[in-house]
Amino acid sequence: MVDEDKLSRREFLYSSGGFAAGVALAGGGLGMLSGCVSEPQERIVEIEKIVEKTTPVSLTAPLPYKVLDTHTVAELAYENWYKDFCSYAVVSGIIDTLEVEVGAPYDSIPTEAFRGFHGGAVGWGTLCGTLTGAGIVTGLVAGGAEGEAIFNDVIAWYAETELPVYTPDNPKTAIQNTNRANSPLCHISVGKWMKKENVAFFSDQRKERCARTAASVAVKTVELLNDWSIGTYTPVHGSQAKTHDITSQNNCGDCHSDGVPPIPGA
Amino acid sequence: MVDEDKLSRREFLYSSGGFAAGVALAGGGLGMLSGCVSEPQERIVEIEKIVEKTTPVSLTAPLPYKVLDTHTVAELAYENWYKDFCSYAVVSGIIDTLEVEVGAPYDSIPTEAFRGFHGGAVGWGTLCGTLTGAGIVTGLVAGGAEGEAIFNDVIAWYAETELPVYTPDNPKTAIQNTNRANSPLCHISVGKWMKKENVAFFSDQRKERCARTAASVAVKTVELLNDWSIGTYTPVHGSQAKTHDITSQNNCGDCHSDGVPPIPGA
Repeated sequence: MVDEDKLSRREFLYSSGGFAAGVALAGGGLGMLSGCVSEPQERIVEIEKIVEKTTPVSLTAPLPYKVLDTHTVAELAYENWYKDFCSYAVVSGIIDTLEVEVGAPYDSIPTEAFRGFHGGAVGWGTLCGTLTGAGIVTGLVAGGAEGEAIFNDVIAWYAETELPVYTPDNPKTAIQNTNRANSPLCHISVGKWMKKENVAFFSDQRKERCARTAASVAVKTVELLNDWSIGTYTPVHGSQAKTHDITSQNNCGDCHSDGVPPIPGA
Repeated sequence: MVDEDKLSRREFLYSSGGFAAGVALAGGGLGMLSGCVSEPQERIVEIEKIVEKTTPVSLTAPLPYKVLDTHTVAELAYENWYKDFCSYAVVSGIIDTLEVEVGAPYDSIPTEAFRGFHGGAVGWGTLCGTLTGAGIVTGLVAGGAEGEAIFNDVIAWYAETELPVYTPDNPKTAIQNTNRANSPLCHISVGKWMKKENVAFFSDQRKERCARTAASVAVKTVELLNDWSIGTYTPVHGSQAKTHDITSQNNCGDCHSDGVPPIPGA
């Protein structure tokens, strides 16, 4: 009883890389239950190799990354938009693909937790949920500081790009237009596109546009993460706060229509 | 030596979440290496019971929650703002407190990954980073759908409240004003306050205001999560998108100064 109820700290430390490490050990353990072990020391060496292989995958950012196929990510993001909207689409499009390609710890990230950022945060029209998703992924994959630089470049690209860029293999609805928002805000981005397409918010076309935009942002995020992972990424976009002496977008005239910012330095 | 190097499985199960299931199995497997098992089938049944008991607390939202002391959370959020800014402050203020109070799986959430949302997403002035942090926490703690309802109420409260509400035990800088933003946007929220306080963005006063705002938002988020966890929470704020027929804030005149929305239905 005493032996069974104890676990050495060494075993604990080896397996503390995450749930996967424990499961790997568990697999070894269960396999052994079918019979008596003749050479336990060899089995320990084997288990230690498994643990060593899985240990680096702990849930401390940056997480292990592998160059991803953008088409795979895009298709998953597109389909997942129709399950839980934009933020979830980007997070799950990338994280669930990493779960297939890398495994743990990506199987332990509750992607469904991030659906609330849809519609610019529960429909408040602020940061486009696809970008919130991108920021969550870049932070997890590349860590706080490096992830932030990549996130900054994704936001700048979003504001300047005719979206959506991506056309899915099997579109659910035909749409006619793309649009450059000059803003990362959901309200401005989707609103300008709705005006151009002449459709309402609760239309199939608008939903399709957002699903394709999620796929587009997922692709851009993965492109930069791929570059980052092989050492060819260089941050491009500068500091918004330093440029404007306040946190800000670059579309000042969209709100300050008289050209005079109401806030000193804004 | 041997005693010091051992850890009981019982300690694991009580102190750990999803990770514990794997480790518990590992313990069983490794424990068996020291000798031959006389009744393997009984051992399998025992292990299956352990797995069943520990499996639900894996990193699938909602995560296990415990009513928190708002003062503890607020002080941690305030101090952590000065380490990595607003989004990190709220996430770490709550998650790191949960790590102390609940333990796993909160020790496996890489809070540093979420710093990139400061300044309304890398300084772009969109959704206040304290709110992004709140949305990440509510999604993890309460799950996608229920977390979203709580997040919606936190955003509505933020827009309508004279912020900051919270005064830290040991303020780093004195500030004079509070302000109602009528918006969850960083740029509008901090900009209006800067105008009232008559200070620049890169001033100690502005930093202090944001640190106190992070603490204030962390408190509000925990108040609602506490209510939710004991069954006394009822969602208050309605659907922004259904109200406006587009994702939107409620401060239409801040941007549409002629009173005529440029977008149909906006």
